[in-house]
Amino acid sequence: MNPTACLLVIGNEILSGRTQDVNVQYIARRLSETGITLSEVRIIPDIRAVIVRTVTEARAAYDNVFTTGGIGPTHDDITSACVAESFGVPWVHHAETFRLLEAHFAPGEFNAARQRMATMPQGAVPIRNSVSVAPGFSMGNVHVMAGVPRIMRAMFEEVLPTLPHGTPVTSRAWHATGLYEGALAAPLEAIQNHYPTIDIGSYPYRLDETQRGVCLLCKGTDAQAVSAAATAVRDMIARLGFEPYEGEPAKS
Amino acid sequence: MNPTACLLVIGNEILSGRTQDVNVQYIARRLSETGITLSEVRIIPDIRAVIVRTVTEARAAYDNVFTTGGIGPTHDDITSACVAESFGVPWVHHAETFRLLEAHFAPGEFNAARQRMATMPQGAVPIRNSVSVAPGFSMGNVHVMAGVPRIMRAMFEEVLPTLPHGTPVTSRAWHATGLYEGALAAPLEAIQNHYPTIDIGSYPYRLDETQRGVCLLCKGTDAQAVSAAATAVRDMIARLGFEPYEGEPAKS
Repeated sequence: MNPTACLLVIGNEILSGRTQDVNVQYIARRLSETGITLSEVRIIPDIRAVIVRTVTEARAAYDNVFTTGGIGPTHDDITSACVAESFGVPWVHHAETFRLLEAHFAPGEFNAARQRMATMPQGAVPIRNSVSVAPGFSMGNVHVMAGVPRIMRAMFEEVLPTLPHGTPVTSRAWHATGLYEGALAAPLEAIQNHYPTIDIGSYPYRLDETQRGVCLLCKGTDAQAVSAAATAVRDMIARLGFEPYEGEPAKS
Repeated sequence: MNPTACLLVIGNEILSGRTQDVNVQYIARRLSETGITLSEVRIIPDIRAVIVRTVTEARAAYDNVFTTGGIGPTHDDITSACVAESFGVPWVHHAETFRLLEAHFAPGEFNAARQRMATMPQGAVPIRNSVSVAPGFSMGNVHVMAGVPRIMRAMFEEVLPTLPHGTPVTSRAWHATGLYEGALAAPLEAIQNHYPTIDIGSYPYRLDETQRGVCLLCKGTDAQAVSAAATAVRDMIARLGFEPYEGEPAKS
């Protein structure tokens, strides 16, 4: 069994619809490639009690917890203090990070707000990165990252290689234009039952106003079984009288 | 207090990173405009026990629960049966929907898989819509919708006007290029403390490789207080020696 992960997206700007999240897909793909199962994503607001409760639940339930958002210098950046509260440890200046940030700013500019970015749960390990001077941090199995996508990615790529991981997920897809889900459901279920360790997904698409089709995706950690299941899917498409195409269709 | 809502995005394709979700932002915006508070989004896999448990938790915790995904005819479409299990009611053919679908398909084509789309928790009310013949449904405070964005939207717009709603959220934003969060955190927090009912968010942006800035967003259900807080934010930007621009910047 691969290790599990939960992602907590912390930020009112996602829940209000102001911002289109793009971090979920990036993290989801990279975890999948690395052999860590993303079991759940929770998008929660900048409310102290909610963040503390959710972090506490998630770190008990999953091998890894990632958070994005809420680690800047302003009053709405409360993730770091909430993680300290979840672990029941003080929220304190991290000496090395403090010095690093102090050296970065011009004299007089390293104010109280910026010093917050050097404040972490006691015992946290900074996640330094090439994009931002202010680091994220890991506290136990909780990995706290920025919400800004390019900073998040830099932090994530630092921490990912340090985590225990399992077998990467491989996938193969076949698609068929003109074929409808309702016509293939029964034979597809038979294939799924024959390959219980493989996750077979059925995703309808439309090419244009009139042309529809379906993409059938086999994935799992056993590459040989993925391949065998995909072959069975291809043969099923042909048996139903449609032309199987490998890969994913260009979708509208 | 506005009514609350939770959105459950059900689908392995989001958690594997195959698909970029676009439903969250649409639903988040529309709820905000309508005066329903989106309190949480949970993205969960196509696993029966997980769906049942999450639906049960969410419908007890929030006024409204929306789900997207998992209501098609294939074996991985298990949302509807899971909602029945969560409510402890049988999963049965809905007579009117059954007739409607039967009439839609050519003789012999309304097979067992397609009949699943006419199967709902006992007592559910179908959400008919202009895009798909197969409806979503409402069961108590749980509103079950398709995952395909254009079908989801059609279902959502049918059900939204039928729900109790509160005061729409209004917002006003000011931004300033060249201004950094670290330089405004203290005066911004003072404004936040002065307007406790207004949610003031600080969102850094970059215009290009060198130019940075910050967008300060005030929102809430009290339009007059939103306006007053936004004026205070504008004056603060000017006091710090930067030029305040209304609205949101073009971001890179």
